[in-house]
Amino acid sequence: MTLKFYYDLMSQPSRALKLFLTVTKIPHEDCPVALRKGAHKQEPFLSVNRFGRVPAIDDDGFKLSESVAIVRYLSQKYGVPNNLYPKELKAQAAVDEFLEWQHLDLRLGCAMYFQTKMLRPMFTGKPPNEKTLALYLDRMNTSLDNVENIWLGSGNPYLVGSQLSVADIFAACEIEQVDIDVTKERPKLGAWLERVRRDLHPHYAEYHKLIKKLHTATQSKM
Amino acid sequence: MTLKFYYDLMSQPSRALKLFLTVTKIPHEDCPVALRKGAHKQEPFLSVNRFGRVPAIDDDGFKLSESVAIVRYLSQKYGVPNNLYPKELKAQAAVDEFLEWQHLDLRLGCAMYFQTKMLRPMFTGKPPNEKTLALYLDRMNTSLDNVENIWLGSGNPYLVGSQLSVADIFAACEIEQVDIDVTKERPKLGAWLERVRRDLHPHYAEYHKLIKKLHTATQSKM
Repeated sequence: MTLKFYYDLMSQPSRALKLFLTVTKIPHEDCPVALRKGAHKQEPFLSVNRFGRVPAIDDDGFKLSESVAIVRYLSQKYGVPNNLYPKELKAQAAVDEFLEWQHLDLRLGCAMYFQTKMLRPMFTGKPPNEKTLALYLDRMNTSLDNVENIWLGSGNPYLVGSQLSVADIFAACEIEQVDIDVTKERPKLGAWLERVRRDLHPHYAEYHKLIKKLHTATQSKM
Repeated sequence: MTLKFYYDLMSQPSRALKLFLTVTKIPHEDCPVALRKGAHKQEPFLSVNRFGRVPAIDDDGFKLSESVAIVRYLSQKYGVPNNLYPKELKAQAAVDEFLEWQHLDLRLGCAMYFQTKMLRPMFTGKPPNEKTLALYLDRMNTSLDNVENIWLGSGNPYLVGSQLSVADIFAACEIEQVDIDVTKERPKLGAWLERVRRDLHPHYAEYHKLIKKLHTATQSKM
């Protein structure tokens, strides 16, 4: 049985996991779930993930959600290049530290900004609430400053250590979702983002096509 | 060198990790960090965790933050009872699924409610903003309903499988922080919470003394 991968390229962790599956060459069957049609909140997908969220996997009957849990499961089961998700205890813990940190920091910051600025207006036809948007923009900027000054502060070319890891893939997919240039006053973040784009070429650009199209469509309406 | 554990019992993940260290009998040296005095945002603690958050550890010079990353590191390094953090791949992934889910769900829901209802008024002397509080109460209730209907929905005595795991410890410490009875219309959650309290007796009650004192103090002011 092939591993089934449920995802939508509009979702940040879906793109991160799709990139992870692509670069590790783990054999999988693509099972797109159309978020714009609400397919994630209906059967048959609810039988894969009872929470109705993408990404999720079905590995020969073993169903698992939550992108970070999936990365860890797949890394142990299939074995992946050591730089992507290290086997050595301390190196693995350092990558885990980022993966746990991002939930309530970078992910919350970027996702709430994206929802308020682009998703909600798209679904409701109403402009974003300016006060809410300012609040989330501020939160996102604090997180991005943490990436610039703390995660990349030591001069490392990547977020954790000297090689590309899943931490970089997760972070880049969050940041790429944002429709403004966040690298302008953050030179380390800018150089790092270019490095990640290059390392993951051509898949990175391919999986971000949809989100870039949405940026263009939103900007042309302003 | 003994493992140094930096924490404050006012912090939910600090209590969860302190309980984990206690029941696993992992030798450690308690290093309290007084949040009320702002010790987490100053040296020497910033040299332990550059993000200025508790809990954190220093294991003979290896510094690590983020409670979930710490649990995983300690489990691998010291070995812990299999029910608490399973070694078997799928059982471990199922516990990981909860630990990843809780960040933006149960933890965000309970922590934002707690901050708005109790922490902010305590520091500013002003009553909570009613609109913000209603928003977070609603978010928290959705998360608690997910615990009742999804995580405990299958009739399992614990969140993941048939035995106590770190998932239960993390969840209980979040829920215990809340100053209202959230078990009233959630019978499964109520029975589960009693089970966790009993399993972790007497440490559970001991580590929650401070938070219960805060609840009493807040209620007497109303």
